[in-house]
Amino acid sequence: MILLDGNHTSSVIRKEIQVKVTQFCQNDVRSPHLAAVLIGDNPASQTYVRNKIRACEEVGYASTLIRKPATITQEELLYIIKSLNDDPQIDGYIVQLPLPRHIDEHAINLAINPEKDVDGFHPYNFGKMALGLPSFHPATPMGIMMLLDRYQIETDGKHCVVLGRSNIVGTPIALLMSKKTKPGNATVTIAHSRTNQLKEICQRADIIIAALGIPMFVKSDMVREGAVVVDVGINKMDDPGSARGYRLVGDVDFPNVAPKTFAITPVPGGVGPMTITALIENTWKAFYKKW
Amino acid sequence: MILLDGNHTSSVIRKEIQVKVTQFCQNDVRSPHLAAVLIGDNPASQTYVRNKIRACEEVGYASTLIRKPATITQEELLYIIKSLNDDPQIDGYIVQLPLPRHIDEHAINLAINPEKDVDGFHPYNFGKMALGLPSFHPATPMGIMMLLDRYQIETDGKHCVVLGRSNIVGTPIALLMSKKTKPGNATVTIAHSRTNQLKEICQRADIIIAALGIPMFVKSDMVREGAVVVDVGINKMDDPGSARGYRLVGDVDFPNVAPKTFAITPVPGGVGPMTITALIENTWKAFYKKW
Repeated sequence: MILLDGNHTSSVIRKEIQVKVTQFCQNDVRSPHLAAVLIGDNPASQTYVRNKIRACEEVGYASTLIRKPATITQEELLYIIKSLNDDPQIDGYIVQLPLPRHIDEHAINLAINPEKDVDGFHPYNFGKMALGLPSFHPATPMGIMMLLDRYQIETDGKHCVVLGRSNIVGTPIALLMSKKTKPGNATVTIAHSRTNQLKEICQRADIIIAALGIPMFVKSDMVREGAVVVDVGINKMDDPGSARGYRLVGDVDFPNVAPKTFAITPVPGGVGPMTITALIENTWKAFYKKW
Repeated sequence: MILLDGNHTSSVIRKEIQVKVTQFCQNDVRSPHLAAVLIGDNPASQTYVRNKIRACEEVGYASTLIRKPATITQEELLYIIKSLNDDPQIDGYIVQLPLPRHIDEHAINLAINPEKDVDGFHPYNFGKMALGLPSFHPATPMGIMMLLDRYQIETDGKHCVVLGRSNIVGTPIALLMSKKTKPGNATVTIAHSRTNQLKEICQRADIIIAALGIPMFVKSDMVREGAVVVDVGINKMDDPGSARGYRLVGDVDFPNVAPKTFAITPVPGGVGPMTITALIENTWKAFYKKW
């Protein structure tokens, strides 16, 4: 069984980017610059943004964190977006979700300049991806593709079952896996909460990508011998024995599933770090095309 | 076996639109107006455009046909696009494909104002569709959804196998069928030229949507008893016995498949007319939101 090690792969890719930054950004060429907008004080969002900023700094990017209280109005946030769009020093930026309830996430997303949309959720970028055109891909599915690529997992002609149809993971990874690309070129089944005979469908999969958000949903009897399993879930489970009182588990029952697989991602340390690496890669692309 | 009659369904929907046009467009309100741009003299393109224009007139729309020789430059065509974007009298327009080789189809597509993009192929609209947001949907998959809706074909929780992954049909119909909508909410498998065990995959389908462009590819032994079959193919087959020397066949071996199905579309007279009806519906939407 191969452990698809997202920490290791991320570290390799980030070093490659760091080398590019060092080589390219000399004399008159400034470093790539990612900005992050964080509204309110959701602890998980704070952690995510902190990790993204730290990863930027590691590879030699400039970074800017814009923090505002949850009481910010939509107009004020749209003004920040406009400033970021207009600022030639900012190559790309993210608006960390979720936003406070009184703010229309969709309106904010539409206001982002697609050329700086390194999260890849603007319809213009999402549409280009769906049409198979070059664009920024959303970070999580892009990170999965990078991981499969680095481990040279064969996907061509394989049957890939995607569990979940979210805009963030399920739908875009299904699109990417179905395209005539490498990795890609897979037969893709999009399964979800309404799917009948899910167990049988999973049993026939060469590749399972689990993105449901249900702890340890994928059991050993759903996975066939020699399958590749990618676990996108990050769920907290009570664990009185641990110092924090909980532990992180994925959407896959790892201890029982892993021995049957050809390759599998751990949680944590699988897809998670690759997501941030994909964001770093997108920021490089946003930066590089200007020069 | 239910014949999913695209001619009849189209005629019903077009009459409904005609009634809306008659009721809404009085006094100061002009009729919806669709323009079509036709470059060169490809006979099939001429027929398609003629049928679209005729359908517009039937429902009481205004229509404009812009014909230019195949020698037109890309700049000239872009200028026409700009004029159409700027003309407040034009609600929507289509640029009939294929375009001459020296013209970059992608650049033309990007130049279309998404608000007038009644073909739904601009990345902005395609992305909104992929994200499950309101937008113009491409005509063929939209026509299929309308047909399934009118015949109240149950799709919720069903397994739908889409044969083909084109941007025009396969990819968008897979997206639409997988969304939490009615019709929709299906488990969707996207199969294509690289798919292994295609026969077995089709045998397990509750719904097959064939969009490969291979005459009579779907045989009786690939379809399970009681399945719903939607045939998107329109292929010419030599037929010395017919007046024209050929006949139109779909991607499905209709005579042998039909008796096994719960419901099936004929070719011609199935998806074809629904495609034009979807365009008419999109043009109504483009028009109506202005008033």
